[in-house]
Amino acid sequence: MTIIDTGSTSPGIRSLFEFRPQTGAPLKRLAHQLLHGESPLTKGERELIAAYTSHGNGCMFCTMSHASAARHHYGADAAIVDAVVYQRDTSGLPLKMQHLLVIAEKVRIGGRIVTDCDVQTARDAGAQDRDIHDTVIITAAFCMYNRYVDGLRALTPTGAKDYTEMGARMAEHGYDE
Amino acid sequence: MTIIDTGSTSPGIRSLFEFRPQTGAPLKRLAHQLLHGESPLTKGERELIAAYTSHGNGCMFCTMSHASAARHHYGADAAIVDAVVYQRDTSGLPLKMQHLLVIAEKVRIGGRIVTDCDVQTARDAGAQDRDIHDTVIITAAFCMYNRYVDGLRALTPTGAKDYTEMGARMAEHGYDE
Repeated sequence: MTIIDTGSTSPGIRSLFEFRPQTGAPLKRLAHQLLHGESPLTKGERELIAAYTSHGNGCMFCTMSHASAARHHYGADAAIVDAVVYQRDTSGLPLKMQHLLVIAEKVRIGGRIVTDCDVQTARDAGAQDRDIHDTVIITAAFCMYNRYVDGLRALTPTGAKDYTEMGARMAEHGYDE
Repeated sequence: MTIIDTGSTSPGIRSLFEFRPQTGAPLKRLAHQLLHGESPLTKGERELIAAYTSHGNGCMFCTMSHASAARHHYGADAAIVDAVVYQRDTSGLPLKMQHLLVIAEKVRIGGRIVTDCDVQTARDAGAQDRDIHDTVIITAAFCMYNRYVDGLRALTPTGAKDYTEMGARMAEHGYDE
């Protein structure tokens, strides 16, 4: 039960977008740019960072929906998503992504603990400015979305199948609608 | 020194908006809606929540700039801003704001620790749905802005006077430009 009366029965953050479209519009636009806009990271990698951060923050709605979107992007390799998000096992990912997820986890805890060494290690594995930028902003943004959803206790479906179609729709159409 | 080459000498988050205008646009639009859009909370109260959260997260750039904007809004009562932000002393605020800041601090730590009791106490002091909503989303958003700024180590001026004019401009003109 949400803490406020949103007047909506939509799941998760959508009920909050409907309650306050004036903030919903830039929040959707931002998510679309982060996860579907031009980036050196694939859409699957970006959804993976979103789900990984959301699980770290304990936000079930964002974890399950973005893990579902990531699985859709990864297709036959979808098992990697569950290993990374739920087991925190990144060993199946390319080295660049492994080191970007170290940065993501530090940004999730607090931006100031990212070290020069973390950044150099990611660069040595092939990360460039935009890879690092996009990792940091996606993580930072999900520290917002997670708190908006959980701070107001937005309706969170708990069945895996509730998220299958949702994730496919997110993966195919994005967020800006 | 920022971790990435933004190609900009602007202070703080502005350098990141210039590096990536595609995300900068919705981030500015969101800040404007949160801090200058229609709300039952005054602009001063909203800037105070932003500065209070940013100080909790240890983000000097966002703390100093939004505390400066809050002081501009509070005018003759500006001393309350420093008491709240730097001493965490909310006793000079109306009871509703005191209880909303309890919710803000919990959302900053993690959205799931807000209790029914926290919400009921704020309601008993006069908070309605929009007060609670706006407190949660402002706090959540600054958990993002703080991490974006500090995760990439955006240029942070350290002198109080560097923020006086910046805060006045933010207070008067908002963020959507």
